[in-house]
Amino acid sequence: EILSAIEDYFSTPDEKPLAGVKTLVTAGPTHEALDPVRYIANHSSGKQGYAIAKAMQQLGADVTLVSGPTKLSPPQGVNFISITSAEEMLAACQNAMPSDIAICAAAVADWRVAEPSKQKIKKKNNTEAPTLSFIQNPDILATLSQSGPNRPGLVIGFAAETEHVTENAVSKRERKGCDWILANDVSPATGTFGGDENTLFLIDKNGVNPWHKMTKDAAAKKLSKRIADHLTLNA
Amino acid sequence: EILSAIEDYFSTPDEKPLAGVKTLVTAGPTHEALDPVRYIANHSSGKQGYAIAKAMQQLGADVTLVSGPTKLSPPQGVNFISITSAEEMLAACQNAMPSDIAICAAAVADWRVAEPSKQKIKKKNNTEAPTLSFIQNPDILATLSQSGPNRPGLVIGFAAETEHVTENAVSKRERKGCDWILANDVSPATGTFGGDENTLFLIDKNGVNPWHKMTKDAAAKKLSKRIADHLTLNA
Repeated sequence: EILSAIEDYFSTPDEKPLAGVKTLVTAGPTHEALDPVRYIANHSSGKQGYAIAKAMQQLGADVTLVSGPTKLSPPQGVNFISITSAEEMLAACQNAMPSDIAICAAAVADWRVAEPSKQKIKKKNNTEAPTLSFIQNPDILATLSQSGPNRPGLVIGFAAETEHVTENAVSKRERKGCDWILANDVSPATGTFGGDENTLFLIDKNGVNPWHKMTKDAAAKKLSKRIADHLTLNA
Repeated sequence: EILSAIEDYFSTPDEKPLAGVKTLVTAGPTHEALDPVRYIANHSSGKQGYAIAKAMQQLGADVTLVSGPTKLSPPQGVNFISITSAEEMLAACQNAMPSDIAICAAAVADWRVAEPSKQKIKKKNNTEAPTLSFIQNPDILATLSQSGPNRPGLVIGFAAETEHVTENAVSKRERKGCDWILANDVSPATGTFGGDENTLFLIDKNGVNPWHKMTKDAAAKKLSKRIADHLTLNA
């Protein structure tokens, strides 16, 4: 961290191509309560999203990181907002608008129970199990992608798939209305969830661009560089 | 840890009243998969169970700690077995039989989905949500409490309640067939889940014995001492 602080200090303005670019990054899982003691979670570690927040900040961006529960420490120099549920994440993201860029790396729970029980759900006998009615959570990526005066100029989503990775992601990009999608295979055998490496596909309106397997830090730097190039080309 | 190692070294046999007593301790939550990326969890941190494993070991017991996913490091000197689901915990507990004492401090998920999806469950449109059929998990405390040649001489359960704490726990002790129940209130306002303190009630065949609020370490030592006294009285 000291070394990185020194590097930051000596970096020239040329190395901050994203200076002043307001960026929202979401990361980690969300937890959806079933009752006061139980919740639905997912295996997202938050590593890829935190790495992206750090890489964007190092290129000069003004980063707000909205994160679900993880074991990670927030990167230095980012505005860190800790939330638990999808609804809380949506509210925090809307508070962070307007932003120039939104990068939705969080693994937001798709569903929650309609009415979490106020008391612990009790086991009744040896055969019954509770029936839980799920409802859809707000779709944060689709919400941020909606056209309007507050829409970030570049909205980037993630697609965590276990099969038909690129097909699902191409269709997701169109359905959500976002500009780019980073798709990855999160089947347990890949070790992506919780691991330090990732094999990503960048999908934009021109098609599918496969990236080599690399560390999540390297993928974050590659994405940040690509965003900087994109902004330069479109300036 | 060095200090505790020195204390261990200089302790006399009198201070190891549980020497050679084979003890199974369960701790932490279990995670029950919904599909490859989602699971049901609970807010158990494992702190109380780990503290009990350590306190029993320090009184000389031969401790096996079967733990669900936690952020904790296993106490030194215990036989540590890491599991994820309730079914895995039951198998590990049965492997640890015969034992003289079983202390079930884990917050085992009561239910799991009957058939976890092999692939990530996809969101279909803007209104549908999946219906998940839950089935009951094996009841580890009741299983270990069943009479038979392998039944530990002392089986101790926990009851994590958010209302009617002692009433629920008294009825749980009878229903499960265990000898003692330690009951606590885990409502979010109490800070018990994840916190360092606990307010317990020890329930045995004679009734309800309220303990003062104390650290989880202190509660673990009090329980271990009480177990040692019980074994002496019944020797």
